Amino acid sequence: MPVGTRGAVKAVTQRDLRDLDAEIILANTYHLYLRPGDDLIARLGGLHAFIGWDRPILTDSGGYQVFSLAAMRRVSDEGAEFRSHLDGSLHLLTPEKATDIQAQLGSDIAMVLDECVASTAEIDGARVAMWRSVRWARRARDRRLQLRDGSLPGVVVTNTGQAQFGIVQGGVYPELRTESAQATIEIGFDAYAIGGLSVREPPEVMYGVVDHTARLLPEDRPRYLMGTGMPDDLLECVARGIDMFDCVLPTRNARNGQLLTSQGPMVIKNAQYAEDDTPPDPACDCYTCRNFSRAYLRHLYIAGEMTGATLNTIHNLYFYLDTLRRIREAIMFGTFERLRQEFHQTFSRRTQQ
Amino acid sequence: MPVGTRGAVKAVTQRDLRDLDAEIILANTYHLYLRPGDDLIARLGGLHAFIGWDRPILTDSGGYQVFSLAAMRRVSDEGAEFRSHLDGSLHLLTPEKATDIQAQLGSDIAMVLDECVASTAEIDGARVAMWRSVRWARRARDRRLQLRDGSLPGVVVTNTGQAQFGIVQGGVYPELRTESAQATIEIGFDAYAIGGLSVREPPEVMYGVVDHTARLLPEDRPRYLMGTGMPDDLLECVARGIDMFDCVLPTRNARNGQLLTSQGPMVIKNAQYAEDDTPPDPACDCYTCRNFSRAYLRHLYIAGEMTGATLNTIHNLYFYLDTLRRIREAIMFGTFERLRQEFHQTFSRRTQQ
Repeated sequence: MPVGTRGAVKAVTQRDLRDLDAEIILANTYHLYLRPGDDLIARLGGLHAFIGWDRPILTDSGGYQVFSLAAMRRVSDEGAEFRSHLDGSLHLLTPEKATDIQAQLGSDIAMVLDECVASTAEIDGARVAMWRSVRWARRARDRRLQLRDGSLPGVVVTNTGQAQFGIVQGGVYPELRTESAQATIEIGFDAYAIGGLSVREPPEVMYGVVDHTARLLPEDRPRYLMGTGMPDDLLECVARGIDMFDCVLPTRNARNGQLLTSQGPMVIKNAQYAEDDTPPDPACDCYTCRNFSRAYLRHLYIAGEMTGATLNTIHNLYFYLDTLRRIREAIMFGTFERLRQEFHQTFSRRTQQ
Repeated sequence: MPVGTRGAVKAVTQRDLRDLDAEIILANTYHLYLRPGDDLIARLGGLHAFIGWDRPILTDSGGYQVFSLAAMRRVSDEGAEFRSHLDGSLHLLTPEKATDIQAQLGSDIAMVLDECVASTAEIDGARVAMWRSVRWARRARDRRLQLRDGSLPGVVVTNTGQAQFGIVQGGVYPELRTESAQATIEIGFDAYAIGGLSVREPPEVMYGVVDHTARLLPEDRPRYLMGTGMPDDLLECVARGIDMFDCVLPTRNARNGQLLTSQGPMVIKNAQYAEDDTPPDPACDCYTCRNFSRAYLRHLYIAGEMTGATLNTIHNLYFYLDTLRRIREAIMFGTFERLRQEFHQTFSRRTQQ
C-alpha cells in the first residue's frame, strides 16, 4: 500500500496511482483528524469522495503518529492524551475515538488503536503495553459493532462496509506474541495485523517474530505486516505468510533521491550519474525507466525540481508493486522459491556503485 | 508554451504535458547553460533526448535571466558579462555564445540575444539598447548561418533544423519599435518576436505597443509575444496579430495556490473553500476539475502537499492551452469576435469571492 499520509501520496496524483495499478492506499488517521478534520471529511461524503479515489483505502488508528510525532503524550488505560504537533492543542485518542474517526473517514479497512513500544523495550514493559493493547482492541471492537448496528450520536458512518483489523503486539518476545495473537483472535476481527516491527530491529529479528506470529493467524484472512520495509523484506515476509504491507520507504526515499532498483538502492545525486544516459533500472518497465535517464534524474534532483521527486516516486512505487505482482504470479505458478533466490542473487541492500 | 525553466515544467511530468496536449515548451538557456551545462546536454544528444520530450522546444537567449537573476552584470557592445547566481562564477554571454549554446541544446526555435531595459526607460536609453540589440541580432544571425553550413570548433549542433527568431525591441516608443522591426526584418530571420513587454507596464500600454508592432511583422511567419501574460491578454494580443506566447504565470501561480478560471483568479487557500465540494472551475474539463474539489485542493495547499501543486498546475496549463485552442477554432469558424466578447463578460482579473 502506497502511503498517502494526508490524503495524497506525496509527489504523485491519483492518476499516477491508477497507472501504477495501486490496488489500495493507506491514509493516516492522526494527520487527517487534525487537518482538515474527520468531521469535515464526513460532511463531504468520506475520504474516498474527498480525495477522489474509488479504490480501497486503509486507515491506521492514529496511535503510531501520537507516539512518534505529537508534541506531548500521556498514556493511560483510558487512551493517549497528546498535543497536536501543528498547533499544540490538546486531544485524547481512545480506542473508541480512533474507531469513530475512521468510521467518519469511511476507509475500507480500519485499524484498532494499540500502544507502540520501542523494539528495545524490556519484556515487562512490552507485556504491559501488549495487554493494554488487547483491552483497547476489545473496546474498539465493541465500538465498531455498535456503529455497524447504527450511527452513534456525533458519528457519521460514511462507509457501512468498513472492515476492522486487530493488531498483534508483543515486541520481540515470542511468548508475548503468542498471548497477544490468541487474545486478539478471541475478540474476533475481520483480519489481523502484526504491529510493533520495522522499528529499527535487525532484519533477522523481524523475520523471526514474523515467522512465529504469522502462523498463529487465521489462514483464510489477510495477514498485514505494518510498516515494512525494504524490497527484500517483502519476499522474506511473504515466505513467512504475510499478505499485506505498507511503507513510506519507496515514496520518502524517492524524494530524497534514493531509487530502489533490482540491483539495490541507487543514490541518484551521485556525480557518477551526471552523464549516464541509461535508465535508472534497465530491468524496470515503469514510466520513468522507459523515458528518462539517470543523468536527467540527477539533474532534476540537483536543481531541486519537483518533477524529479515525481519521477523517482513513480519508479519506486512501481518497483515495489511490481515485485509484489511477480510474487503473486510466482505463488500461482509454484515458482516462488525460485523467484526468492533470484531476487536475492541480484538485489543487495548496499548502495549501487 | 508552458515554461520548463531547467528542462522540466515545474510540478508536472512530460506525460502530463502530453495529456494536456502541449504542442511546444520553452526552456531557459541561462539555467541550462549554468547547470547541467550545454556541453553535457550536447554529449547526451541534445535537450530533446536529455529531457525525454519529442515535441518542439523553444529556448530563449539567456539574456533575460542575465538581466533579472545574475549576481552581477556588465553590458558592453561585446555582450553581457555576469556572475552566476549559483556559484558566483564569471561568464560572458555574447550574441555568438547565446547562439552556440542553443545550437548545442538543439532546440527547435532559438532566440537571439537582446538587451532588456525596464518599461520605465526613457526614450534615449531605450533607443541605445534597441540599436545594440539590432547589432547583436546581426552577429547572432551570422553565427547561426555559419553553424548551418557546418559545425564550428567546440560547438556540437544537435538539431540541424533549428529555426532562429529575431526580437523587436524599443520599449513603449512606437517610433523605436518601427525602426527595430525594419532593421530586424532586414537581417532576415525565420520569424520574429516582440520583446521587452509584460514588464509591469499597464495592459493598455502593452496592447498599444503590440498593436503597433505586430502589423509591422511578416504575415506569413508566426509572431511571438515574449513573456505574456494574463488569460485576457491572450485574446487581446491574438486580436492584434500574435500567434505564440510563453509565460510562467500559469505554473508559478499554481504553486502559489492561485487558479486561473473562466471567472478569473481563485485563491484556493481561502477559508471559503474549506467545505466547497465543487470543482475549481465547473466550466473546465481538465483532469483536476473532473476529479477534485476546491475543498481537497485547499487541504493539499494548506498541508503543503506537492500533489496540490501538481493538480493546480495541470488546471492552469489546461486553462491556458484550452483558451488558445478555442481561439484557434473561433478564428477558423469566423467567430473570434464573439468568443472575445464572451470571454471578457465572464473573466475578471479581480480575485473570485
